[in-house]
Amino acid sequence: MLHFDNKIFFATNNINKIQEAQGILSNFGIVIEKIDVKKVEIQSDVLEEIVLYALKKVNKRIIPIIIEDSGLFIEKLNGFPGPYSSYVYKKIGCDGILKLLEGEKERGAKFVSIVGFKKDKLIKIFKGEIVGKIAYKKMGRHGFGFDPIFIPGNIEKTFAQMNLEEKNLWSHRGRAFKALGEWLQSSIKNF
Amino acid sequence: MLHFDNKIFFATNNINKIQEAQGILSNFGIVIEKIDVKKVEIQSDVLEEIVLYALKKVNKRIIPIIIEDSGLFIEKLNGFPGPYSSYVYKKIGCDGILKLLEGEKERGAKFVSIVGFKKDKLIKIFKGEIVGKIAYKKMGRHGFGFDPIFIPGNIEKTFAQMNLEEKNLWSHRGRAFKALGEWLQSSIKNF
Repeated sequence: MLHFDNKIFFATNNINKIQEAQGILSNFGIVIEKIDVKKVEIQSDVLEEIVLYALKKVNKRIIPIIIEDSGLFIEKLNGFPGPYSSYVYKKIGCDGILKLLEGEKERGAKFVSIVGFKKDKLIKIFKGEIVGKIAYKKMGRHGFGFDPIFIPGNIEKTFAQMNLEEKNLWSHRGRAFKALGEWLQSSIKNF
Repeated sequence: MLHFDNKIFFATNNINKIQEAQGILSNFGIVIEKIDVKKVEIQSDVLEEIVLYALKKVNKRIIPIIIEDSGLFIEKLNGFPGPYSSYVYKKIGCDGILKLLEGEKERGAKFVSIVGFKKDKLIKIFKGEIVGKIAYKKMGRHGFGFDPIFIPGNIEKTFAQMNLEEKNLWSHRGRAFKALGEWLQSSIKNF
């Protein structure tokens, strides 16, 4: 049985991620607090490895803590930009991805989110995934990163055309945090 | 004064890098030996940080050791692919970069190499840089990675159109290893 009050620290500087996580976890009575902590992010093709390494290296006194990493994996680009999505977004943006896919009809892609939870020596990993496709142009103004060009499932709407609640229903991050919430609910004493 | 015989371990799986390093360091009487060692590569926009972290984490019994990291920084793409050049090459190749620069006349770019040397507690960093531009198409069959699309200086020839000796004269890696060689020459006792 896990013991702690209802607050978890989320090591991220991305306020959008905080809001998305809070949107899910408040359903489980959990409060997220943003924390500014030095994270060691390794280079790896595997998101789980990045999150695990960062969790292991994080300051032990901050508990319980979550670290999240996510990536957009585009089939025709062999999984690019993958774990480096945030770097690639900063450098070439949605326009760069659209240019790389110019004239391309196969636009399959998936978004993956890995949420890692740590309390004392306990580490748990949760994965959320959503398969979809890359739009032909940017659409919508909500969200962040590649949201304006990612269409989840078979609808004709990008993440950036959804409000937070709707995006959380579909999204990789919403799914990973839901899995965390369900696990916490079943594991925490006096929840 | 440094003390060791004339052999240095090079932690890389890239046989081309071994050959380029050996091409330079043999002028200084130094023999390079490839070594397969677990390297921790962090995500960072700064090559020096990546090399320093890896050197600090490397198995202490392997001495002296060098770690090298390099990147292609393209002006119009805000420095992309930078420290992630090898990942980006694997995923979208030279063709991906050419596509991103389609219709673009400003093609300025630079290649940077950081060579880190470690013996016991001593760590030294050497930097090599070459400014040039991205070609309009792939040319040449030598070298590796983005060599077929990188034109150093003001000549009209890519790295891939040069043999190893000529590339070493121009290249970022050649320059960094030459700086290492010169420093070793002036620092090693009984050299």
